[in-house]
Amino acid sequence: MKPSGIITLTTDFGLSDPYVGMMKGIILSVNPDARIVDLTHQIEAGDVLQAASLVHEAYPFFPKGTVHLVVVDPGVGSERRAIALETDTHLFVGPDNGIFSPLFQPHKKRTIVHLTERKYFLPSISHTFHGRDIFAPVAARLSLGVDLEMMGPLIDDPFSLPIPRPKEKGKSLYGQIVRVDHFGNLVTNIHRKELGRFLGSAPPIIRAGDLVLRRLCHTYAEVGEGEPLALLGSSNFLEIAVNLGRASENVGIHSGEIIGSEVEVSRAE
Amino acid sequence: MKPSGIITLTTDFGLSDPYVGMMKGIILSVNPDARIVDLTHQIEAGDVLQAASLVHEAYPFFPKGTVHLVVVDPGVGSERRAIALETDTHLFVGPDNGIFSPLFQPHKKRTIVHLTERKYFLPSISHTFHGRDIFAPVAARLSLGVDLEMMGPLIDDPFSLPIPRPKEKGKSLYGQIVRVDHFGNLVTNIHRKELGRFLGSAPPIIRAGDLVLRRLCHTYAEVGEGEPLALLGSSNFLEIAVNLGRASENVGIHSGEIIGSEVEVSRAE
Amino acid sequence: MKPSGIITLTTDFGLSDPYVGMMKGIILSVNPDARIVDLTHQIEAGDVLQAASLVHEAYPFFPKGTVHLVVVDPGVGSERRAIALETDTHLFVGPDNGIFSPLFQPHKKRTIVHLTERKYFLPSISHTFHGRDIFAPVAARLSLGVDLEMMGPLIDDPFSLPIPRPKEKGKSLYGQIVRVDHFGNLVTNIHRKELGRFLGSAPPIIRAGDLVLRRLCHTYAEVGEGEPLALLGSSNFLEIAVNLGRASENVGIHSGEIIGSEVEVSRAE
Repeated sequence: MKPSGIITLTTDFGLSDPYVGMMKGIILSVNPDARIVDLTHQIEAGDVLQAASLVHEAYPFFPKGTVHLVVVDPGVGSERRAIALETDTHLFVGPDNGIFSPLFQPHKKRTIVHLTERKYFLPSISHTFHGRDIFAPVAARLSLGVDLEMMGPLIDDPFSLPIPRPKEKGKSLYGQIVRVDHFGNLVTNIHRKELGRFLGSAPPIIRAGDLVLRRLCHTYAEVGEGEPLALLGSSNFLEIAVNLGRASENVGIHSGEIIGSEVEVSRAE
Repeated sequence: MKPSGIITLTTDFGLSDPYVGMMKGIILSVNPDARIVDLTHQIEAGDVLQAASLVHEAYPFFPKGTVHLVVVDPGVGSERRAIALETDTHLFVGPDNGIFSPLFQPHKKRTIVHLTERKYFLPSISHTFHGRDIFAPVAARLSLGVDLEMMGPLIDDPFSLPIPRPKEKGKSLYGQIVRVDHFGNLVTNIHRKELGRFLGSAPPIIRAGDLVLRRLCHTYAEVGEGEPLALLGSSNFLEIAVNLGRASENVGIHSGEIIGSEVEVSRAE
Repeated sequence: MKPSGIITLTTDFGLSDPYVGMMKGIILSVNPDARIVDLTHQIEAGDVLQAASLVHEAYPFFPKGTVHLVVVDPGVGSERRAIALETDTHLFVGPDNGIFSPLFQPHKKRTIVHLTERKYFLPSISHTFHGRDIFAPVAARLSLGVDLEMMGPLIDDPFSLPIPRPKEKGKSLYGQIVRVDHFGNLVTNIHRKELGRFLGSAPPIIRAGDLVLRRLCHTYAEVGEGEPLALLGSSNFLEIAVNLGRASENVGIHSGEIIGSEVEVSRAE
């Protein structure tokens, strides 16, 4: 695959420490022409699944041949492997802790390499910052077109985390709230396709916390200010929102319990 | 106008979600050589006027031919138009909700286009994320030199928001606090020129909340640590500050009421 | 020195205001090909020593010839000088307020210039934002290869801040906690070399707040979830951490008092 020269970064490092800057310094030392794009550095500390989901949502919007460097790595320095992964369009680098699970779907072509060739790493490897010492230089080399198969043996048993999927039980489809975005919108794991298949031509009844919503809107502005609504968000997942307000504060679920909270969809008779 | 190849981004998306990254991915897909600069993604959710003012303050420091992409868009997907705007030095793209009001001054040359030509957008347009689906690809094409007049019909009735201006009443000039910056400095809408014209050679008396200040300083360090002062800030607006402290916590105005709070300037006899 | 074309930025400006964007606009106006990397804009307001330490930790990871622009400048507009500094590998620009103190070590080659040549500045210099009006254009010119000795007279008396160093007293080595990172890890000023020299082959006893730790771990995952540990961090300083937790909340020191708090190392008999 021809590299795009772009490297995206996703970490739980925050923006106050020198860690992200160090990684960028290493990348630019290896590939001075790399164009680096921050996806986010605000992943909750150690939340591998949140990073996995965010990268999976964002990466298709980048040009073919982009390298995605993902470092949420609570097991750094332990026995967990360092890996690089190539699909038919993109490249990924990070720890083998499930952070690429959404890419491990059956029938999808992908090549996974256990990163062992030390000549692609920094000369000295710390025990606690493989983002800088292993993943950044590897990502930079991939962005230059180095073949990932040079970097270590192929593996076919990457560590995979179970990703919560909606379930049909009785007459309802049960999904979960998987993300509260910056606007307080509650993003669920119920995809447009699954919702369409389940509802057919019936209007929906959507229950989340205290709310009962009886239709799908297209835009936030379709309801009055401060009123709740359901819609299919820009990534095609069912979303609970409040027009010009924060659904996360209006749904009657304690804020600490929103993520993972159940959303029930049924068909109006 | 020859494009500079630079695109600035201003949104209320925050830095935790994948939204900003998606926009950058689209921009780089259309113009791989675009240089993207974040102005801020920390605009208060839906605060169109705050974005308008920030972009207006910052854009003149960029090279001629820079494209400024501004997405604070609570009405996304409704009837509000998508527009692009060209002045004699810069280009702007965003929703037609008043976000470019400070640019709509009489006697200023500007071309405004209602973005309707779908071939400049993404193939599929969501109802809730025109930043990604319309504005980002349009900005990228403007940065490549595509003429905005190809992108839709000219309009001359852009939506405009009233921008609070200082007023002279009796013997005083009344302005407002329009921004509290990161340092707690209170930035007013009283411009250096207006203040000079009003004061002439008289020394000022400046009242803000509990404070009464009787001179204009040039630097923060001109008063003791923790003491309040007034000065003309780096963007030439009157500013209330505290040396090595936060004026926002010392002016005797409840924090929720600072923005829009009155600042009175009178002439010492 | 051949410039790398990279400019890093470190400030206490935060990410909400237009200030950082303005500096980038000026840099790109002077050097359209500059590659700008944010180290952080989250330095505590006016905390010169924190900025000094962060830049000193991060800069060696950048290519030779990189320009580091550092603006934490509470004395802006006062008599404090503006300076540029060249070591044998990197360039630095900022106020002469001690922000480059860690670079002022004896036996280290360095050239320091008092920036006085106004033709390298913006035409109009504000009293309150030299980051934009002086430091950004100077950094951009250094990134183009302009010789810093053209920019003003050499000086050899830069302002220097005392940097806290560990001390040996009786049978113990006393260091300080100098940073709490994003993960709540407590970074001390005790360097790997100093610790090794002090301990020799003896196992350590490490005391910080309520904690007593009797060994050095290599990785966070070496202890159970929620358990405290000591290790040498990725920048080779002794660090107190909690596996999958925040040491800053577990060490029994009031959060306002963590920075500067004592860490005692002694040799187990």
